[in-house]
Amino acid sequence: MTRILGIDPGSQRTGIGVIDVAADGRCTFVHCEAIKLLDAADFPSRLGLLCENLERVLDEWQPGQVAIETVFMDKSATSALKLGHARGAALATVVRRHLPISEYAPRVIKQSLVGRGAADKEQVQHMVRLLLNLPGVKLQADAADALAVALTHAHMSATVARTGVAINQLRRRGT
Amino acid sequence: MTRILGIDPGSQRTGIGVIDVAADGRCTFVHCEAIKLLDAADFPSRLGLLCENLERVLDEWQPGQVAIETVFMDKSATSALKLGHARGAALATVVRRHLPISEYAPRVIKQSLVGRGAADKEQVQHMVRLLLNLPGVKLQADAADALAVALTHAHMSATVARTGVAINQLRRRGT
Repeated sequence: MTRILGIDPGSQRTGIGVIDVAADGRCTFVHCEAIKLLDAADFPSRLGLLCENLERVLDEWQPGQVAIETVFMDKSATSALKLGHARGAALATVVRRHLPISEYAPRVIKQSLVGRGAADKEQVQHMVRLLLNLPGVKLQADAADALAVALTHAHMSATVARTGVAINQLRRRGT
Repeated sequence: MTRILGIDPGSQRTGIGVIDVAADGRCTFVHCEAIKLLDAADFPSRLGLLCENLERVLDEWQPGQVAIETVFMDKSATSALKLGHARGAALATVVRRHLPISEYAPRVIKQSLVGRGAADKEQVQHMVRLLLNLPGVKLQADAADALAVALTHAHMSATVARTGVAINQLRRRGT
């Protein structure tokens, strides 16, 4: 069994999703939450709060692999910069634990879960609930996105194991 | 005496500058270096390497205050994103140590050291050497920028102490 932590980084809220993947590829829901960062006194403190909470999650759930969303670059330089700060703080925290990190573009995540790179957020949320057997549960949006990236990593890893196609080839095909 | 760590964050190289400020405002050179990040295996590893080295610097030189450059926003979203990652990783490392952080725009640093917000890098380097009594020493560019932000913080703090003008007012005036 493999435990995967999915991260949807953001400077206002960072989504966290933890799933277990059995040997037959079946995925089970373990935990999800949205780390709220807006209450911090200033922007550096938000990043400190993000790392502190991420370390708590890593301690508590002990994932063996980490998957994180890349940034969709249709953003202004200002929002790219803010998101970059949050993503950098999160990546650094994970790397310091020597955990393997896989990065997936939003388009690849949608493609993997819904079968279309242009799927909307509602469809992704619907598939996350379906795949993790959480019918009727309304997931917080960032937490659902974090579960989606964890599920994508589980699917990609299973495809790699089955077909021997390198994972970065799959990632490229999706983009 | 106050020890100030200046950081010039970058995803290829991060500049580090450490100075001591005496009660009369005189600044003394303590240490500078450029942390090279390009040798890391991938981008997340660069951020890990940055934090690891920053923690080594914090352990070794035990600064009481930290000053860091803000990002000059005449950049593409792609470079803003990369720089954001490095800056986020650095800020998170400092915040986790509960050290006070001050942020200065490049224009404010130039204004403070050279008297003109549009000064070139050579002039800033010249003033850093002059103020820290390092005649003839060729400083690595990122290390010199890190010393410059540390010196700016020393000057701003002295002005605040003398005049009672809030430091964020001074920062605004310079931009």
